[in-house]
Amino acid sequence: MASEFKTRLFVETDLAAGTAVSLDGDRAHFLRNVLRLKPGDRIALFNGRDGEWSAGLAELGKRAATLEIGDRIRGGEDEVDIWLAFAPIKRARIDFIAEKATELGASVLWPIFTRYTVMDRVNLDRLRANAIEAAEQCGRLSVPEVRDSVRFEEMLDQWPAERLLICCDETGGGAPIIDAVRDLPAGPAGLMIGPEGGLAKEELDRLDKTPNVCRVSLGPRILRAETAALAALACWQAAVGDWREGLRSI
Amino acid sequence: MASEFKTRLFVETDLAAGTAVSLDGDRAHFLRNVLRLKPGDRIALFNGRDGEWSAGLAELGKRAATLEIGDRIRGGEDEVDIWLAFAPIKRARIDFIAEKATELGASVLWPIFTRYTVMDRVNLDRLRANAIEAAEQCGRLSVPEVRDSVRFEEMLDQWPAERLLICCDETGGGAPIIDAVRDLPAGPAGLMIGPEGGLAKEELDRLDKTPNVCRVSLGPRILRAETAALAALACWQAAVGDWREGLRSI
Repeated sequence: MASEFKTRLFVETDLAAGTAVSLDGDRAHFLRNVLRLKPGDRIALFNGRDGEWSAGLAELGKRAATLEIGDRIRGGEDEVDIWLAFAPIKRARIDFIAEKATELGASVLWPIFTRYTVMDRVNLDRLRANAIEAAEQCGRLSVPEVRDSVRFEEMLDQWPAERLLICCDETGGGAPIIDAVRDLPAGPAGLMIGPEGGLAKEELDRLDKTPNVCRVSLGPRILRAETAALAALACWQAAVGDWREGLRSI
Repeated sequence: MASEFKTRLFVETDLAAGTAVSLDGDRAHFLRNVLRLKPGDRIALFNGRDGEWSAGLAELGKRAATLEIGDRIRGGEDEVDIWLAFAPIKRARIDFIAEKATELGASVLWPIFTRYTVMDRVNLDRLRANAIEAAEQCGRLSVPEVRDSVRFEEMLDQWPAERLLICCDETGGGAPIIDAVRDLPAGPAGLMIGPEGGLAKEELDRLDKTPNVCRVSLGPRILRAETAALAALACWQAAVGDWREGLRSI
């Protein structure tokens, strides 16, 4: 299984045997009052760099907690590298994208403002908090990087030349996702999901002029943006990602 | 596209040219106060049997509305036949399963109580309402059938012999979903997702003794039940369902 510990916490600090990690009041409260842990109990810590470590609760006060780090349980294996760029949507649905994309192994979450995006801002702290909570729960050794939001054109300017951009196209112009993904050249990739209203014509034209872009279709029904994001990630993981070889350690 | 009309309503009554359909107060309120429609406006109606029909708003009062049915816009094409059996989970997450499974084309939603299922009841009316709303939004011509909940053992007893049961197995015992689904024999199938705690040993033993069962894996991370349901449906649709040939009419 992903971890032998039910309770896993993401921390920012370095992790090494014999060192101590301090938690702030919110997390101390969570350990004490929600999980009802006591000094001496053991949990797992990870920071996205050093793998997963067992840690014993040394002190558990009202405003802070201290954990003493023991053994490394799992190493920092390579995780799959699949980005997800998406147009911000309403609160519950964007929370959902952050949580589910994390469970499905996205390495980067990148909010993109397109012409038909209804929302005019995105709460990056909230996206990060949802991603951290999901990473703790699903057994990942990392948390997806949440990038600062940019406009669609800026995204294309900033998109690395060697990274394939797989754009989920609700106009039906793309190839069925499973065929497209199966035929992908090896190398880094990212998925992009437009807003509920789709991409504007000038955005689609701009996409067509961008190298290393592939447009895919997600079937005949009109999927909500968050459904499309999830479905595309699941298909990518199943066809070319880390679902292929069955259960691995991450 | 799935429909030329933005507003689609599911109704139970038969649909035929020249006939009239009455809507109750809730739906009349929705058309008048939420969508701000007026007499003369046109919407689409479907009932899961007769395809999709254009209809004109003849009367729109406070307690009722009458629609006059015009032409059939789309026929009652065959839709894919994929069941989803799942252990009931908490309210927002089960709402989510109903909505997303409908968008992803599930034909049957079947709540199953397993040994480790935490919930002890399920609101079938709420499941149906969520499925109807999602079907209206995503352009389907049908609404998934919501079956009465049963215990896991009853599900196995009632499961049709000719229908493959694809069980998403979080113990890692199954084949990667994409390989398993690709190699499926032609014929009807259903996906089953267990509760967050997984299936009990005796339930897995019972599954192993059941003919026409295939256990599949959804990768190395621990997916929440609703994520697993969505991911499995998306992979099935992409690999052998109606996403294969790109955009169709349903």
